[in-house]
Amino acid sequence: MRLGKPKLPKNLFDSFILFLGIPIKFVISVTKNPTQMRTQIFTLLLCFALGFVNAQESILGFTSDNAKKQTTLEAAFESKLTANNLDKWMQLMAAEPHWVGTEYGEKNAKWIQKQFKSWGYDTKIETYHVLFPYPKVRVLELTGPTTYKAKLTAVPVEGDKYTAQGDALLPSYNAFSRDGDVEAELVFVNYGIPSDYEVLDKLGIDVKGKIVIAKYQGSWRGIKPKLAAENGAIGCIIYSDPADDGYGRGDVYPKGAFKNKTGVQRGSVMDMPTYPGDVLTPGYGATKDAKRLDRKDAPTITKIPVLPISYEDALPLLAALDGVVAPQSWRGGLPITYHIGPGPAKVHLKLEFDWKLVPAHNVIATLKGTDFPDQWVMRGNHHDAWVHGANDPISGMVALMEEARAVGELAKKGQKPKRTIVYCAWDAEEPGLIGSTEWVEDHKTELQQKVVAYINTDGNGRGFLGVGGSHSLQAMVGEVAAVVTDPQRGVSIKERRSAVDMVNGGDGAFKLSALGSGSDYTPFIQHAGIAALNLGFGGENAGGEYHTIYDTYPHYKRFKDPEFAYGVALANTAGRITLRLANADMLPFDFQQWHKTVLGYLDEIMMQTNTMRTAVEKHNTMVEKNSFELAADPKKPFLKPKKKKAIPYFDFTPIQNALASIKTTTEVLSKVDISKLSIERRHSLNKRLMQAEHVLTSEEGLPRRSWYKHQIYAPGFYTGYGVKTLPGVREAVEEKNWKEAQEQISKLANTLKNFDKHLQEMAAML
Amino acid sequence: MRLGKPKLPKNLFDSFILFLGIPIKFVISVTKNPTQMRTQIFTLLLCFALGFVNAQESILGFTSDNAKKQTTLEAAFESKLTANNLDKWMQLMAAEPHWVGTEYGEKNAKWIQKQFKSWGYDTKIETYHVLFPYPKVRVLELTGPTTYKAKLTAVPVEGDKYTAQGDALLPSYNAFSRDGDVEAELVFVNYGIPSDYEVLDKLGIDVKGKIVIAKYQGSWRGIKPKLAAENGAIGCIIYSDPADDGYGRGDVYPKGAFKNKTGVQRGSVMDMPTYPGDVLTPGYGATKDAKRLDRKDAPTITKIPVLPISYEDALPLLAALDGVVAPQSWRGGLPITYHIGPGPAKVHLKLEFDWKLVPAHNVIATLKGTDFPDQWVMRGNHHDAWVHGANDPISGMVALMEEARAVGELAKKGQKPKRTIVYCAWDAEEPGLIGSTEWVEDHKTELQQKVVAYINTDGNGRGFLGVGGSHSLQAMVGEVAAVVTDPQRGVSIKERRSAVDMVNGGDGAFKLSALGSGSDYTPFIQHAGIAALNLGFGGENAGGEYHTIYDTYPHYKRFKDPEFAYGVALANTAGRITLRLANADMLPFDFQQWHKTVLGYLDEIMMQTNTMRTAVEKHNTMVEKNSFELAADPKKPFLKPKKKKAIPYFDFTPIQNALASIKTTTEVLSKVDISKLSIERRHSLNKRLMQAEHVLTSEEGLPRRSWYKHQIYAPGFYTGYGVKTLPGVREAVEEKNWKEAQEQISKLANTLKNFDKHLQEMAAML
Repeated sequence: MRLGKPKLPKNLFDSFILFLGIPIKFVISVTKNPTQMRTQIFTLLLCFALGFVNAQESILGFTSDNAKKQTTLEAAFESKLTANNLDKWMQLMAAEPHWVGTEYGEKNAKWIQKQFKSWGYDTKIETYHVLFPYPKVRVLELTGPTTYKAKLTAVPVEGDKYTAQGDALLPSYNAFSRDGDVEAELVFVNYGIPSDYEVLDKLGIDVKGKIVIAKYQGSWRGIKPKLAAENGAIGCIIYSDPADDGYGRGDVYPKGAFKNKTGVQRGSVMDMPTYPGDVLTPGYGATKDAKRLDRKDAPTITKIPVLPISYEDALPLLAALDGVVAPQSWRGGLPITYHIGPGPAKVHLKLEFDWKLVPAHNVIATLKGTDFPDQWVMRGNHHDAWVHGANDPISGMVALMEEARAVGELAKKGQKPKRTIVYCAWDAEEPGLIGSTEWVEDHKTELQQKVVAYINTDGNGRGFLGVGGSHSLQAMVGEVAAVVTDPQRGVSIKERRSAVDMVNGGDGAFKLSALGSGSDYTPFIQHAGIAALNLGFGGENAGGEYHTIYDTYPHYKRFKDPEFAYGVALANTAGRITLRLANADMLPFDFQQWHKTVLGYLDEIMMQTNTMRTAVEKHNTMVEKNSFELAADPKKPFLKPKKKKAIPYFDFTPIQNALASIKTTTEVLSKVDISKLSIERRHSLNKRLMQAEHVLTSEEGLPRRSWYKHQIYAPGFYTGYGVKTLPGVREAVEEKNWKEAQEQISKLANTLKNFDKHLQEMAAML
Repeated sequence: MRLGKPKLPKNLFDSFILFLGIPIKFVISVTKNPTQMRTQIFTLLLCFALGFVNAQESILGFTSDNAKKQTTLEAAFESKLTANNLDKWMQLMAAEPHWVGTEYGEKNAKWIQKQFKSWGYDTKIETYHVLFPYPKVRVLELTGPTTYKAKLTAVPVEGDKYTAQGDALLPSYNAFSRDGDVEAELVFVNYGIPSDYEVLDKLGIDVKGKIVIAKYQGSWRGIKPKLAAENGAIGCIIYSDPADDGYGRGDVYPKGAFKNKTGVQRGSVMDMPTYPGDVLTPGYGATKDAKRLDRKDAPTITKIPVLPISYEDALPLLAALDGVVAPQSWRGGLPITYHIGPGPAKVHLKLEFDWKLVPAHNVIATLKGTDFPDQWVMRGNHHDAWVHGANDPISGMVALMEEARAVGELAKKGQKPKRTIVYCAWDAEEPGLIGSTEWVEDHKTELQQKVVAYINTDGNGRGFLGVGGSHSLQAMVGEVAAVVTDPQRGVSIKERRSAVDMVNGGDGAFKLSALGSGSDYTPFIQHAGIAALNLGFGGENAGGEYHTIYDTYPHYKRFKDPEFAYGVALANTAGRITLRLANADMLPFDFQQWHKTVLGYLDEIMMQTNTMRTAVEKHNTMVEKNSFELAADPKKPFLKPKKKKAIPYFDFTPIQNALASIKTTTEVLSKVDISKLSIERRHSLNKRLMQAEHVLTSEEGLPRRSWYKHQIYAPGFYTGYGVKTLPGVREAVEEKNWKEAQEQISKLANTLKNFDKHLQEMAAML
């Protein structure tokens, strides 16, 4: 009901307050003293004007005085970020192909070093000598029943200087495929992941002695040749199916952003789930004089030759297959009936590589902390690319540099960080996280003592904040996300992300994802046990350029982040995280959210064992009743399934008890009042907080891959990049290795007990 | 542990028993008297040999004496079925195209009549005069930005006399499209079903004044032009996408069974969910002198012109579209990026039909019952086809004829049915269930008095029993399915079906599906309220021949049921059902399974209202929080969703109470002991049992489609063939018509109360 005209506000303050949407009543109610009220309103307006009225009156890890200073500092930092720098730098760094060992790669490294130096950083280039294969011979041909010679070359875009660079473009290949010359019948294996081989088994199709052709996606690419070889195949072809990565996604380049019929995704197939980094120096730095494995003994080079191809090249191969029609869910977007084979298609695959040691140049730039020089906050992004790499990695690299420039500028003006900040530009990430891994392995002891946290970025584009990492950092990252504004929608990036989550059926709560692998955080968190984060924006930047000759500046400008607004948002977000970690009175680790998350992981595994148990019981009943055979079409191939071993019940209580105790401890820790702690006490606590992540590792590492030490997060042995949380227990259960499952439960419980002890020692200090 | 050699059986009996898998111990334990034992074993062996050792010592609706007789009769019936007849008759009837009004169609009808006559049936041909459009002009062309003239012709198969018949093949078209000559921009609308228009709404795309192109499938085809017209489109093109019905399913004809690029699915687009049958004589028989609507007033002719095309013809049209890229789930199997448009593709669609009355010849063959000549068990299958129709409908027709031949032969030898059996061969099913509908409308009163049940069949092939119908017949059909042997696996068709259900995640229980529409049972059950069944085999007979020129004898022999083994199984199953209904002492209706099923339908609707309520609440919260806009890509079209009206709570208790009372009544009825009832009492009960289904109808019918009288089953107003159970309530809820929902709850509760009363009156007779 409307009662007459709305009253006009009495004065300018009121009208401005109304404009800002604050109810007058609220402003008046907080104070009755008119002078005080006026001052408060002024402060409020100032805050609004500067854009940092927010929940940040308190900041996790800061006393209230220091929180105010930090808020001012971060606002100053943000104001220095300029999109134009990112644009300019990308044009420079992505002008030429620059994979590890290239001249242009070295030029970039030196140029990056020079920039950092000019911004006031101590810089150095640390070079490792790493094995890198360059493709010398690539032959793929259909030899029967018809013939076709694969082109293996993506076509340049008319009028585009980048894709026209000819021989400078790295030929498309999978790095760390072994050499090989094989000819055999072809078998289509869908994505070539474990569940696909289960289907092949049911159909009675064996890949032994065959060459398999698998679609990209469904897992990290390196899993495909690994599993193919485990199943006896002698060669592996990987192609981008247009349904997943081509015209089925959207218009193809150059009309649209997606993969045209000639585009090929390069990429490493090194067995990174065993260990990443230089294949010849597992666990230690690939320094000039390091002792090296013989190449033939390097366990992370593939067992069979592997080659990636375009869908134009895949079409005649797939069309020449016959035999069993592929299951509905296997079929892709080519205009054919997908058959599995084997044959009659027969293919010849010949690959030879120039295997040589090349220098990988890591740029390390340090800004010494005023108060705690031996506590390092580390930031990193790689600089090497498969080809030009405008998106991957340069879009992240330029954001990191702009962030570093602003931080350096503040330092020059006297606003130096309390802790040391180290910016890194890694080389040789693409072939297998090599630059960062060798550096971490080489400096492991020092890093484990000094690093507070490592914050990683990589390719970046328009969209929503994606962030994963150590869950002890979730609360802090959530606070930062609440004060960074989304460039397109004007709300915080946290709110926008929450909206997307809700629209997609989630609850909208801010959560970090768990880290698997796929970028340079891996050696830090999974090998050295250092708390880590990985962040970037995306979701409105889809395309098919990944690891192709089309990942260029023009593609980036049209489809990724045309204004570099999200590049700036990334610098802003990562920079604030870095500055908070660098300046916090007490390091902003929170173990309550950590506890909740890990409890959730345990619940998942417990639920999974129950689901598996029920499924096995149903399966066995159906085997008894002969249901599978009765249901099967007698005219189609069918292998009668066997009864499966019943799933035992596992005793998860040691883990549950450890987590219950941790919960109690974290409640004590959460009540800390920093302002009541002495500087010395804070310092002691911080030293323990820095070590907490390391307590979650075990020196002997995970079964069959001791390089991976972390007991909470690991890349999956059969998923590649995809994370497995509580990996020892989870993978034992998934692989139905019951003995190991019970052992790993015990081991994890011990790790958690040690972690609890570590937290309790901190609680005792309060 | 193995102890010495296994003992050999002592004599031939034992060894035969072992061969049959019966443990000797069991045989011995049932009797100690050696002579008696020997006799028992002989009986057992005889039963095995004759294949009817089963649960049929008791048969629902039969006294135990009569159950034995019936078992013997059914065995005799089965032994007379010969696959060769089916093969021979199919070759004859599917030799030429024979849609309604053709000479060959009339020839088939007369030939069918002659056969029935020779088998001892009283036969007649009842002819109706029905409107049928024949395509005179069919033009579809892309007029901009490029040009293409659609071929609209499927190519013949080399060396195949059927597909080579040229002008004799009915041009591909959608019957009961109106005439039209339109030119407009094209819009791709996915399947053209309600949810697709919701997506278009969200994208801000309007089809008003446009021509839409929709994929076949997702609904019955007639829904597509209906919804397009409701949304303002001026023309509609329907095509078979290769992902759904082409190379995406399997190898295409003639290499495989699936639709090649030139195949076109014909089919009616008459608005059958409003009423089926002759468009000019709704609700009454289209006799020679019947009063007819003006064609322009016929409500079931489409409002806009519609044409079906092949995927070869669709490709240039779809490729010429631009604008918004279709959502992932809309994309099909053509090697293009699917765009929605509108335009720039512009198409010209011109259709003219020769609208004339043609004769539809129903063959009616009667075998008079000995005891209850005025109680009719009806069986039907249509004989008209779109082209040759080897599968649809001849495969079902020949099974029905072989069944009728065997029944007639038994009758000739004195084993006449107690009730009258009526076999029908319907004409004009394809254009809109016209032959059966006109006949039912014409004879409605008599049928409602006399028909026990109508059993329908149609196309049939290799695979599993599929059966739907009145749930009062579920128990009886389940008993029959338990004694028919699957020709491929040797177990009962019930067991095989149960195995398939379990492998697909079900519980394996035998259930009838509910009938929507799509074949000639519709006028019986949904209009006249006569209990009905529809059955056939399938699941191992997939192909793309449906309603194309490729539905021929050679296609059928290669891909459908090469040995006609499932044709015989269908004759066996439907024949046993017919004979049980014809001879039962008490008609085998069971209302306990009916009650459980209907209670399940109610639960579904109640759950659906709750789900809708929660979804609306979440939606409205997200609208309040602006989540949709925040989550949307600002560079893509986006219309801000509005708040939705909250879903009220409905009072379902009247239905619940009625069903609770029915439950009690059915428990009483289930305890009946037929042998203790006098013949007269049985007769009275049977008369009431025959009427039960009719009590589930209401004279005023469903809202906005009074032709549909049944309150439990109806084809969906916006799904077409797809069933809506408890349709008055369910569709009101789905359409968010709250007032109508509450009215329909009331109405359904009254129907159920009447039904309960009807059952109680029977219970009182016991």
